[in-house]
Formats: sequence, structure tokens, C-alpha cells
Amino acid sequence: MNLRIPGPIPVPEDILEAMSTPMINHRGAEFKDMLFRTTEGLKSVFGTKDSVYILTGSGTGAMETAIVNTLSREDKVLSISIGTFGDRFGEIAKIYGADVVYLKCLPGTAVEANQIRDCLDKHPSIKAVLVTHNETSTGVANDLEEISKVVKKEYENKLLLVDGISSVASLPTYMDLWRCDVISTASQKGWMLPPGLAFVSFSDFAIESYKNSDMPKFYFDIGQYEKYFKMGQPPWTPAVSLMFALDLALEQILKEGIENVYSRHKEIGEFTRDQVRKIGFSILPEEKVASNTVTAVNVPDGYQAGELIAFMKNNYDIVLAAGQGELKEKIIRIGHMGKTTHDDIKPVIEGLSNFIS
Amino acid sequence: MNLRIPGPIPVPEDILEAMSTPMINHRGAEFKDMLFRTTEGLKSVFGTKDSVYILTGSGTGAMETAIVNTLSREDKVLSISIGTFGDRFGEIAKIYGADVVYLKCLPGTAVEANQIRDCLDKHPSIKAVLVTHNETSTGVANDLEEISKVVKKEYENKLLLVDGISSVASLPTYMDLWRCDVISTASQKGWMLPPGLAFVSFSDFAIESYKNSDMPKFYFDIGQYEKYFKMGQPPWTPAVSLMFALDLALEQILKEGIENVYSRHKEIGEFTRDQVRKIGFSILPEEKVASNTVTAVNVPDGYQAGELIAFMKNNYDIVLAAGQGELKEKIIRIGHMGKTTHDDIKPVIEGLSNFIS
Repeated sequence: MNLRIPGPIPVPEDILEAMSTPMINHRGAEFKDMLFRTTEGLKSVFGTKDSVYILTGSGTGAMETAIVNTLSREDKVLSISIGTFGDRFGEIAKIYGADVVYLKCLPGTAVEANQIRDCLDKHPSIKAVLVTHNETSTGVANDLEEISKVVKKEYENKLLLVDGISSVASLPTYMDLWRCDVISTASQKGWMLPPGLAFVSFSDFAIESYKNSDMPKFYFDIGQYEKYFKMGQPPWTPAVSLMFALDLALEQILKEGIENVYSRHKEIGEFTRDQVRKIGFSILPEEKVASNTVTAVNVPDGYQAGELIAFMKNNYDIVLAAGQGELKEKIIRIGHMGKTTHDDIKPVIEGLSNFIS
Repeated sequence: MNLRIPGPIPVPEDILEAMSTPMINHRGAEFKDMLFRTTEGLKSVFGTKDSVYILTGSGTGAMETAIVNTLSREDKVLSISIGTFGDRFGEIAKIYGADVVYLKCLPGTAVEANQIRDCLDKHPSIKAVLVTHNETSTGVANDLEEISKVVKKEYENKLLLVDGISSVASLPTYMDLWRCDVISTASQKGWMLPPGLAFVSFSDFAIESYKNSDMPKFYFDIGQYEKYFKMGQPPWTPAVSLMFALDLALEQILKEGIENVYSRHKEIGEFTRDQVRKIGFSILPEEKVASNTVTAVNVPDGYQAGELIAFMKNNYDIVLAAGQGELKEKIIRIGHMGKTTHDDIKPVIEGLSNFIS
């Protein structure tokens, strides 16, 4: 099977095998070493000297972690959404009692700096900005560097909370350089891991906000993670097998060099879009905002995404993703995170080509 | 290494290997079949016809799930604690805004029916009773059947929320028969799995309470789990590798027969306590409340748990657990969940015997 959805991604065999390592005591010396080593590795990938915590959970849990640890009920927040995952980030904030201002962009577009300025000028009491770095539902990457310049340089004392679930370890992301306050990510993306772990970084400013945050939390309380980390332990029993896999994946990523990982994703993203266009299909977003982790392809007029996906599965054993929400039948999505090669993409192109011919 | 802590437990090799299965689409047909099959298997083990949800997270996450989905802020709840995990259950309820009445029993004892009656009579507005079935911090099993008789038969309209983290799939637990409303459990115990999954059952009465619950939740919102389950999907990306392992473990448990699993735990529990006493050590709890999943052994006068644990690790490569909280240096704990044999326990006894001789 050629699994080409935007996560889970095909996991290299040696990383899969690392999960068969026998159990160890998660409060013992061996785990302590692994926790410290993987945390250092994660900090290196995030580009931060601040804190990174390893959670057992999905990316959604990591988004909740970002919200409940920095905000208080009634806090005004700006939720920028360019797709379903952006909507979700705002929804979590709302459920926990934040006063959410919504900035919703058209599907397939990225947010523009002026849109953010308008919102922040109109609502000066906004305390935090929630934004998706890479929106897999539409195959669009926001310009996080530019967003950060607006939020962190043009304004003062605003938290920048980033959904980096499908960007960290795939697209250039520099936590400290870009002054992000929280970045949430998850293992089943560019990390080349199965799903089940999530990683969340907190800047010093985010930690300051934690101290005043009154949203209720327990499982995702990063104060507990910090307290136990000092003892070389996780607060709750962790997914030990996935930790073994993380340990190996980080070793490979750091050996390759994170900039090379970014280049690899850029190359395969451009290759995929180029090939898709060559056979007469069009890409949902404009080239300048197209994501290098997932390509959203418009389904040709007269067809439905469901048909195309079934055709690819039945004839080529290739698994693609449909659109989400209003785009459900209008686009198909080709995932190319992790170690995707031209040989993984070529059969997809061949299949798409045969679908319309 | 002979890992004898109360979770994670040594995982059978074939179950470890199942985790190396290549990734699949968690929103595809193959995963749907696995989700339905494993959920049916879990319901059979829980002894329920009602709902069981599979979460990615630890047992603590499953405890939070029990609380936030059934209760509202200001609800009065009775938190019965016979150890650190009982304390934790009450703490979660308090953090989410419940009005908590505490019933704290002495370490090493189980709760008695009359203690519960006294609390419920004194506070007639109590809406829910929180109780640990099997307290691994002290090696004590509460009599859940008796507790249920008090809470569900002698009183009306009270929710019985059970921390069954280390009991379900190890000790007799009959969700429907005993009219439990929520039971939370986690994979790294009698299920013979690595940590990372948690399972939570909800009775119809608990689902009714969900509809009126105002505690905030998103990642652990069982309404989301129910909605997606109807489509054969989890709401968030699940720990796919652990699901493969769960699928195999459930097949083995159901083939063995759950009553046989209980007998196996009873036999090894009794054997362990018997052997411990034979070499002159004493057990923290009285025999009638001693747990068959973990044995809490009193550290002989003049010694510290830390010394004993280091001795066992250094000389026998046996990993035992210390006490928790005030019992930290006073007891050591021997885990015997899952397929523990006499041959796993004998070297522990030999080591303990040599420690004091």
C-alpha cells in the first residue's frame, strides 16, 4: 500500500521495529536518559532554548495544551483560520471560555499581514493570536515568519500560539528566532513516527502566562510536566514504545540535519505540484502559499473526490485523502511528508492521469 | 530484566511485534473494522452492553475523561481515597470546579460500606462517588461490588465513577452487573500492552449526565468520540501501532476467557503474598483486601525502600517499585499483572530473602 495521506505517514522499518523494544520502568534511569536526550533533540528541531514537553496524545491534545496553559476565561484571543484545523484551534479556545475573535480566510488562501493588523487594531485587548502554520485541510502554509513580525514586533505583549502539527520537522520553523510562544506538533508527520505522541514548546513568556492562567487542566497541565521533568520523569505513564521510536527518529533527523529535512520536503512538494500540473490537474492554493507537506488537488469538473479516491485505491493500492468540510468532494490531498521519494509520487500521478483519460 | 512494577508490565513478544505493522489510514475501511472489533472486545471484558471509548493517553487522562464528561462545576462529589491514585481522582474533580467531599482511608486499608453511607447521609446532595477499584500505591483492592450496592441500591441517582486503571482485565469487574457508570482503565496493566491507550466505559445514566455537564472538554469529549464512532472513526488521530497491539491482546484475552484471566491473577497474587510471608516479610494490607495485581511489602525495620530496590536491581536485574507519598521508603511493591508466572516471582523472593540475611 502506498499511504499518501497527510498523516499518519509510512514509517521507516527500523523505526517501526524500535517499538518492539521490551518495556522499561518509566521512572527509572534508562527512561530518564531517554527523556533528557529526546527533549534536547526536540529543542534542536524546534529551534528553541526554552521548554519542550512530550505528551501522550494527538495533535489536537497538543492544541488544547497550548490554550489551557496560557489563557484565562474571558481572555480575548484572535483565531486565524485558513481551514478546518484553524477552526478547531478557535473552537478549543471558545470551549474553555476565551472570548474569540475570528479571522477566517477563504479556503486555499493564506492569511495576510494586513488582515491581522486590522483585527489587532480593532480589538486592542487581544491577548493571544492562534494560528495554523501549515493547514493540511487545504494544502496551504501560512508565512509564520511574517505573522510573527506583525504579532510580536508591531504589537506588544501578545502571545503567539502556533499549530505546528504538520510543519515542525517538515517546514522551516524557528521557535526562538520567530518568537513563537507555543508551538504544538504531533509525531505522525515529518517526524517519521506513528501517531500517539505530541510535542509542545513553551517560551518564557508563555510560561509567565501559565502562572496566571485560570483555565482548568490536569492531564495537559505543563506545570506537572515541568515538575516531573526536573526528576527525569513524565508526570503520567508515557507511551514507552513510541518513545523508543522517537529516540531513533530524532537521531536520524539530527544526523541528516534539520535544514536538509526542510530541503527534502521543499523538493518533493515542488516535484509533486509540478507533476500534477503537467497532467492537466490544478492545485487549490496559489504556488506561493502551497504547502510542501501536502498537495491539495482540485477534482476535475464533473467528478467527485470519493470516486477518484476509490479509483486510486482499487487500481493502484494508493491511499489519498478527500477534502474536509465544504471541500470534501472538491479536492483530493496527496501527502508527502517524511522520506517521500519521486518513486512514491510517480504512481500517484500515473493513476490521476488514467482517471481522467 | 525482570520488570516487576505495577505497570508498564512485560509485554508478550508477539504483541510487541504487532506494533511494527505498517501504518494504515485511520479513516479507512481497515481501521474501521479494527475499531469496531476492538470496541466489541473491550465491551466484553468490561462486562457492558453500553459504550466503551478508546483514547490515546494514560490512565490519568481516562480519569479526567470520567470527570469532565459527567459533572458540572459546583456539583458535589464524594472522593473516596485509599492512596495516591484516589487522591488524584479527587484532585481532578476539584480542579475542574466540583465541590469535593473527601473520604480518606488509612494507607493499606480498603474503604468500608459504613464510611460511604455516613458521607452520603451527611451530604445528601452528592451527585457522584469517585472510587479507585484497585489502588496500586498501597496494593489494596476495594470491594467494588459492595460499594456499588451502597451507592447504586441504597441511594438514588448517584453516579458511580470508577478508577479501574489497574483492575479491568485483571480483577473481576462487571460494569453492568455492578451498575458502574464510568470505568476508566489503561493499557499497560492486565491488558498486556505497552502504555499509551486508555479505555473508558459510559453507562446510559452517565451519557444522560454528559448532556447536562458543563465542565469544559475537547480532547477528552466523549461526545466527539461517539459522533465519530458512528462513522467507524476516532475523532482525533489515534495511536495506530498500539491499536494493532490491542487487537491482538484482546484476541488472546477473549480466547483465554476473562474468568480465566481473573483466576490467573488471583493465583499469582496469593502465591506472591504466601512466598513473601514465608521469608519473614509482612504485607502492608490485610489479606482480605490485598490486591492480586500488586503486592505492597513492608520494608523491614532499619532499612529503606531505596536500598532494597537498588540491591534487587544491582544483584538480580529485578526492577521493583518504591512506595508513593508518605509510604515512599516504607514499602516496596511487586507487580504481577499480565502473564506473570511463578518463575518470575521466585527470583524476587530469593533476592528479598538475601537482602535481610
